[in-house]
Amino acid sequence: MEGKEEDVRLGANKFAERQPIGTAAQTQDGKDYVEPPPAPLFEPGELKSWSFYRAGIAEFIATFLFLYISVLTVMGVVKSNTKCSTVGIQGIAWAFGGMIFVLVYCTAGISGGHINPAVTLGLFLARKLSLTRALFYMVMQCLGAICGAGVVKGFMGAGQYGRLAGGANVVAHGYTKGDGLGAEIIGTFVLVYTVFSATDAKRSARDSHVPILAPLPIGFAVFLVHLATIPITGTGINPARSLGAAIIYNKDRGWDDHVRLIYSFHYPKIRS
Amino acid sequence: MEGKEEDVRLGANKFAERQPIGTAAQTQDGKDYVEPPPAPLFEPGELKSWSFYRAGIAEFIATFLFLYISVLTVMGVVKSNTKCSTVGIQGIAWAFGGMIFVLVYCTAGISGGHINPAVTLGLFLARKLSLTRALFYMVMQCLGAICGAGVVKGFMGAGQYGRLAGGANVVAHGYTKGDGLGAEIIGTFVLVYTVFSATDAKRSARDSHVPILAPLPIGFAVFLVHLATIPITGTGINPARSLGAAIIYNKDRGWDDHVRLIYSFHYPKIRS
Amino acid sequence: MEGKEEDVRLGANKFAERQPIGTAAQTQDGKDYVEPPPAPLFEPGELKSWSFYRAGIAEFIATFLFLYISVLTVMGVVKSNTKCSTVGIQGIAWAFGGMIFVLVYCTAGISGGHINPAVTLGLFLARKLSLTRALFYMVMQCLGAICGAGVVKGFMGAGQYGRLAGGANVVAHGYTKGDGLGAEIIGTFVLVYTVFSATDAKRSARDSHVPILAPLPIGFAVFLVHLATIPITGTGINPARSLGAAIIYNKDRGWDDHVRLIYSFHYPKIRS
Amino acid sequence: MEGKEEDVRLGANKFAERQPIGTAAQTQDGKDYVEPPPAPLFEPGELKSWSFYRAGIAEFIATFLFLYISVLTVMGVVKSNTKCSTVGIQGIAWAFGGMIFVLVYCTAGISGGHINPAVTLGLFLARKLSLTRALFYMVMQCLGAICGAGVVKGFMGAGQYGRLAGGANVVAHGYTKGDGLGAEIIGTFVLVYTVFSATDAKRSARDSHVPILAPLPIGFAVFLVHLATIPITGTGINPARSLGAAIIYNKDRGWDDHVRLIYSFHYPKIRS
Repeated sequence: MEGKEEDVRLGANKFAERQPIGTAAQTQDGKDYVEPPPAPLFEPGELKSWSFYRAGIAEFIATFLFLYISVLTVMGVVKSNTKCSTVGIQGIAWAFGGMIFVLVYCTAGISGGHINPAVTLGLFLARKLSLTRALFYMVMQCLGAICGAGVVKGFMGAGQYGRLAGGANVVAHGYTKGDGLGAEIIGTFVLVYTVFSATDAKRSARDSHVPILAPLPIGFAVFLVHLATIPITGTGINPARSLGAAIIYNKDRGWDDHVRLIYSFHYPKIRS
Repeated sequence: MEGKEEDVRLGANKFAERQPIGTAAQTQDGKDYVEPPPAPLFEPGELKSWSFYRAGIAEFIATFLFLYISVLTVMGVVKSNTKCSTVGIQGIAWAFGGMIFVLVYCTAGISGGHINPAVTLGLFLARKLSLTRALFYMVMQCLGAICGAGVVKGFMGAGQYGRLAGGANVVAHGYTKGDGLGAEIIGTFVLVYTVFSATDAKRSARDSHVPILAPLPIGFAVFLVHLATIPITGTGINPARSLGAAIIYNKDRGWDDHVRLIYSFHYPKIRS
Repeated sequence: MEGKEEDVRLGANKFAERQPIGTAAQTQDGKDYVEPPPAPLFEPGELKSWSFYRAGIAEFIATFLFLYISVLTVMGVVKSNTKCSTVGIQGIAWAFGGMIFVLVYCTAGISGGHINPAVTLGLFLARKLSLTRALFYMVMQCLGAICGAGVVKGFMGAGQYGRLAGGANVVAHGYTKGDGLGAEIIGTFVLVYTVFSATDAKRSARDSHVPILAPLPIGFAVFLVHLATIPITGTGINPARSLGAAIIYNKDRGWDDHVRLIYSFHYPKIRS
Repeated sequence: MEGKEEDVRLGANKFAERQPIGTAAQTQDGKDYVEPPPAPLFEPGELKSWSFYRAGIAEFIATFLFLYISVLTVMGVVKSNTKCSTVGIQGIAWAFGGMIFVLVYCTAGISGGHINPAVTLGLFLARKLSLTRALFYMVMQCLGAICGAGVVKGFMGAGQYGRLAGGANVVAHGYTKGDGLGAEIIGTFVLVYTVFSATDAKRSARDSHVPILAPLPIGFAVFLVHLATIPITGTGINPARSLGAAIIYNKDRGWDDHVRLIYSFHYPKIRS
């Protein structure tokens, strides 16, 4: 990072106007943004504020609606014999990506619009929120996911639900388990990378388009990762979603199946 | 709500800068927005203002165009024997969601862009508009919906129109009526929740991206609810649309069929 | 319009804050926008300015690219025997709507981004541009459309091009010519209505989201009209596109076929 | 260009307010933007600044993710026997266009968000960046593309990867090589034209919507070009992508196949 000082010495911001859409240097002096200090691990006042619990409730509702709409869309496609008379695999990808767009938009001002424990973890590691808040968010996300999948199961009846989801296997034929794991890792990276780009305080100050469009590229990233990795693993980049769906589907089975299920619950029958 | 005072005492707004995209506290003092007072039930001056009637006309035109485009798209899909040579179920969902996006955009400045009686009711319950205006909007929306569906019937001929729509049943095979009702309730909640998020005065002041993107997530919410619930009930989250379509389709039958039809008119034959 | 004075007397702008997304009154006094004076029929200085000709060139290029991409997409779908291995009818609708979005975005600052003679006519009737400019735009649009369709014909070879487009008939089976005409009229209304909403000076001043999103709802309106009316007439809401395609396809036939072709050239074979 | 002086003499900016969305004249005096000076060919200070290398790394990551997601989506479609149970050709077009939208959004503030050597070349020819930087970007883009395609090959296994991609031929049946070349040239023009429109300093100053939406029309342009030209050549408007895919696929074959492969690697088997 000493390169940054180099930057300043060379007057790097004279490059700024030359590149389209802000190519080149971030200057370190005369900056027009405020880098917030890292969040403390424990923030005692937080637990007494209403805004803390409201944020948790928002995460719960968002994850609930996310699971409800996406699992229902998957079920609609899986149920049908001919895929052409359904919204198709592309429709499933839209359901996931679109819900993230809408829900990040709706909850961004209340809880930050995480919805995904992987995003919460990433932002915690970057010290953007306290440990207390991170754990609280993750618990609420998992509860919301379980309720959302539960409602879909209630609508479909346990028998039909179980039959459609039965036979789930982690990785599609022709791929190894390592392939599946790698695909999930890169997919999660795409999502977290987009979230960090969208919420970086430095960029918000420089590029006027960043905060305005923020929820749109995040939703699109989710859509695109689903387009690419549904044929491999069913795309499990949201641990809350995978956990919720797996618990509701499979509460009788042993927990040794759990890891297997956690990123493979989705779309098992789409093969025809 | 006493938690709010707690909030202020703790200086909750020191959390604000730490969370991405505005996580955490809404401060109550020094706020930069104006919470409008609740609308009165009756606003006598309103009935004499041209803007009141113009708003009603805008709602009429918007609902008319919404029904026209969406029912025509549905008819195009239903008519065809092979779904692959149509825009498909996904195309139907785009037609509904996209029209709401365009029409909310077009009429937001004239009437507020409700288009849907459920939205009007929700905003009335939140005291965002007077009872007079709410009733006027709902009447205009229903008239617009009836005219829109009527024009499509005129284009297709009563015989073809009736044959394609015949045999409508509320809830698809494999779901109970309770499932259908529940799906509609959650679907309508998703829409109204998004509308309230988009138009909340508090959020508009804090998050710069809110008022700019507003019509986009509202349209997307409609799109996503259709993706998920078309296979269950055909998605009747817009009562005006359901009513208009049901009246035009079924004006000879008894009104005891009406409730049955009101949220089931759509896409009856998509099953193949 | 005397209602407007009523409006002012009643202090209509006290309604403004009460409605979400700007429901209700447009106030007439203290307005924060400048209503431009109507354009003169002839603007002599215009013909000597470089910006006038640059605008015409921009319209030519935009219409050329619009025809090229959209006709090529249609050809790709029509050529294939099984529609499932193409982008499908929905893909065609995206090609039309998406190109309008991109091209309005690109040319808005140069020529106003009309691309469509119907839009030019509408804006001329509203006295937003001079007769000279309107005629010049329309000529350039038609020339661009002819060139665009010609390039596609060149790529495909006259034989294949003619065979695929052969047998064009105005209105699909099951609809009368009147239905087709009506569908085109309402479709064009949807487009022009959206364009006027997006470019209204009054609204731009009031609603902050209007000028920013403008090209997006215009493109979406085109997309949606195509979703709905492709099964009826193939959607001819852009006269330049219909004319260009018809001339290139059919230069040997008599001009008595012209009106028939003008709104029916598109997608004749999509029926399977 | 002497027409510009004519423009000023005639007071061309009186046209400005009359046209919707900024029709007509760009005035030359009193301009509210700063035209940056052309970039020098060699900028010695650049090579010592950390921002220069960070920009290269951003281009590498972006091209890597672009290839990874898009090639994986193509593989998922190609692998399946019935296209209806995949995301389809339209889904492939979304993968390309959507990734460009997300990645331009993410890297615009770091490197300018080129991702495509053709874009880098275009911006270099317009003297928007130095020769050093242009070459560095292109090298990083090609390396990223090779790595991205390599990871997909690793996931799928060399055998399956080779079999699916085997039999690539430049131009689909029914088109000549000249048609393919022409289609690629026009397609690349559409992309570069959109990029220049989005990043033009003049337009950014005049049209408030330009810098905010910028990544969206660029992504859409990529999507649309793919919709239109996949059936002809598979769309090779990104040389880095074509090169990376060709090298990974075909490292054993002679380089005389290279030019043939460079714009034809994509989607060879989509024909059914």
